[in-house]
Amino acid sequence: MEIQELFEEVIGLLEKCDYQSLRSLLDEKEPYDLALLCEELSDKTLPIVFRLMSRDTAAECFSNMESDVQEALLKRLSDSELKAMLDELYIDDTVDLIEEMPANVATRILANSSAESREYINQILNYPKDSAGSIMTVEYVRLDKNMSVADAFTRIRRVGTEKETIYTCYVTDSDRTLVGVVTAMDLMLSDTDTLISEIMETNVISVTTDEDKESAVLKFSNYDFLALPVVDKGNRLVGIVTVDDAIDVALEEATEDVEKMAAITPSDKPYLKVGVFETWRARIPWLMILMLSATFTTAIISSFESQLSANAILVAFIPMLMGTAGNAGGQTSVTIIRALSLEDITTGDILRILWKEFRVSVLCGVSLGVVCLFKSVYIDGTNWETAFVVSITLAIAVLVAKAVGCCFPLLIKKIGFDPAVVASPFITTVVDALALLLYFAVANAMIL
Amino acid sequence: MEIQELFEEVIGLLEKCDYQSLRSLLDEKEPYDLALLCEELSDKTLPIVFRLMSRDTAAECFSNMESDVQEALLKRLSDSELKAMLDELYIDDTVDLIEEMPANVATRILANSSAESREYINQILNYPKDSAGSIMTVEYVRLDKNMSVADAFTRIRRVGTEKETIYTCYVTDSDRTLVGVVTAMDLMLSDTDTLISEIMETNVISVTTDEDKESAVLKFSNYDFLALPVVDKGNRLVGIVTVDDAIDVALEEATEDVEKMAAITPSDKPYLKVGVFETWRARIPWLMILMLSATFTTAIISSFESQLSANAILVAFIPMLMGTAGNAGGQTSVTIIRALSLEDITTGDILRILWKEFRVSVLCGVSLGVVCLFKSVYIDGTNWETAFVVSITLAIAVLVAKAVGCCFPLLIKKIGFDPAVVASPFITTVVDALALLLYFAVANAMIL
Repeated sequence: MEIQELFEEVIGLLEKCDYQSLRSLLDEKEPYDLALLCEELSDKTLPIVFRLMSRDTAAECFSNMESDVQEALLKRLSDSELKAMLDELYIDDTVDLIEEMPANVATRILANSSAESREYINQILNYPKDSAGSIMTVEYVRLDKNMSVADAFTRIRRVGTEKETIYTCYVTDSDRTLVGVVTAMDLMLSDTDTLISEIMETNVISVTTDEDKESAVLKFSNYDFLALPVVDKGNRLVGIVTVDDAIDVALEEATEDVEKMAAITPSDKPYLKVGVFETWRARIPWLMILMLSATFTTAIISSFESQLSANAILVAFIPMLMGTAGNAGGQTSVTIIRALSLEDITTGDILRILWKEFRVSVLCGVSLGVVCLFKSVYIDGTNWETAFVVSITLAIAVLVAKAVGCCFPLLIKKIGFDPAVVASPFITTVVDALALLLYFAVANAMIL
Repeated sequence: MEIQELFEEVIGLLEKCDYQSLRSLLDEKEPYDLALLCEELSDKTLPIVFRLMSRDTAAECFSNMESDVQEALLKRLSDSELKAMLDELYIDDTVDLIEEMPANVATRILANSSAESREYINQILNYPKDSAGSIMTVEYVRLDKNMSVADAFTRIRRVGTEKETIYTCYVTDSDRTLVGVVTAMDLMLSDTDTLISEIMETNVISVTTDEDKESAVLKFSNYDFLALPVVDKGNRLVGIVTVDDAIDVALEEATEDVEKMAAITPSDKPYLKVGVFETWRARIPWLMILMLSATFTTAIISSFESQLSANAILVAFIPMLMGTAGNAGGQTSVTIIRALSLEDITTGDILRILWKEFRVSVLCGVSLGVVCLFKSVYIDGTNWETAFVVSITLAIAVLVAKAVGCCFPLLIKKIGFDPAVVASPFITTVVDALALLLYFAVANAMIL
């Protein structure tokens, strides 16, 4: 709603050609809100409003825009305007931009970047997707251990405005080896002639460029950092990850995990920005695979067709058995997958996990079985014999489902794949088939 | 592994009674790592090691411990030791502690807090669960707009060590109304005789005490803040939320959402810390409800028993139809729920969402139906007539499932409940019943 008001005010000032007031109105606003404003503007008014923003606000606003708005705007900017904006953009935001733009726009961005930036950009683009290196920035404050606190302040005042954070400064050797960290708080609370080497923290926690970005996020959560240094294999400082990017990664990765667990190819765009075909493409592969894999359940039922005709009531419980087993397996697999991504457990804990899940599933299986027995007789109105078959199958199926839901993700993780991808729906298919086989085996043994 | 090494080193030094070296070893470590160390220690060695830590490290380490270790340690600390530690703990950490301890321990903590802290603690404990007020802290730096930058530095140096952050300072009126924000960066880059009123940002973004903590997290993500002011209804400053807590909330809330979607009562403890009975209690209610709600599918199938006996092959496709419809509905509901919690969509967007989901589900339904038709004939070996019944049912069921998966969460949100709770498994039950009814209706119309 607030954005709508801002939009109307802006349009009003544009109509009156009151650029002076418009400029000061824009000056007051946060870059994120300006980005939302820009999404509402037409292709014609967008560049006019954008040009009225101050240079650093414009750059920050730009990096907050959705990629379709960025692309529309870039088309209208001259090379010199683009160059000026790229100077203001942080390297990590430029990298994000290049990754999202079509090839010709990306080439134009690279061509208008400074030679130094271009080198950094190419370096960051080369780090594996989802690595700490791919989300880092190179704009940090570097100090020398022989500097005094006063020297450090002078340097921060000189270079600070171009850096993504000045609150954590990094102390490196002549070969860029990371030797210490000093916070702005340490500096402010020390005498001006103290040497950096006296106040720096030498026991530095860092990530390597190829470490998973999720484990960088966990370090932020565990150690309460504002920035985390990224080093190469030789402990040389190559960049930093800042806490604002860590929050974004935490939210994005959670969305991705949720989407994967629901059998959707993850997307990093907001729901309403994704086209119908794109949504279809993200959803249809898994639906198709799961539909085709149901060939097993069809085949199992077909092969027991004569027994089922002889005892037709058994059919009525198939959905309940498969549904409950699927839910039981899903609970376990989702818990295990989330615990793996929070590093609460590792694949090495498999025996402890199995033992715990075994006891939980016995409890669940027995309680469900007992309730199901009486429900079948008194609510569904079946005979005791069938009720026993159904309940015993249910209890064992829950046990099996929880075992599958627990082992599958750990196994997938162990062989180096992403457990979220194989979660609930795929496990459900396996569990469905096992539950059916079990059902017919129990039925055969007891009544058929 | 590193913790294991640290543990052995600590035990070695304890055996040699070399407390001097132990103290300096502990001094080098991060509080989070020390908390992991404490979890490995026996009840007897834990207080010895804890007492060797410096006061502020000990407090930070304590707030990083799991609650069972905290409880064990508190039993061994004298009242004066407890009082000393509480002085060092930030108010928000003390509140977390009180919420997790048994009543008698909580009372002891309150009794040993200063009168001023006790007042703040009670205030924060009174804010609704999951509100911004419940996660805030009161240890922020407050400035006056008539101060000079030099005055501000003096105040920060005097009070800074007790504050949770000094990088964002808050400017308030005499009645504590929030009038501006100044960052440490603004202060460092300004001349010492500049007035705070000249450099402060007056357009302050804040949350109110009863706003959802997830929307506070989204503000951190959107505006890249390091701290967010929390105000009451009269815009008076009552506390701040810091970015390190925002990251923790982001991770916890994602875990909670995932657990709710998998029909588990959420828990905030790490997987291996939760007892078997507790895990059972978190999982059994939904399994039981879903098992009992399958009474509908059982009744539907029973009532069509005669038709099924006449055309036994139809039974074989029930699992595939219900499974695919369930997956299709789950994809949509999970996407909608996540988009709602990221505030990408609101319930007001329902028509746009329905229109989009309708087109996506037509695409999905048609593609699945066509593939299913040929699969049924050529892989499952059924006749064309049955294959048509199955495929048409599948296409319509996908449409219905996606409509349910889309409307349910929006409706639940609209009437003020948490959509994650009613997600996938519950929707699956509804979709299962609808798919079955549809199946028999199509079959009746076409072949029976």
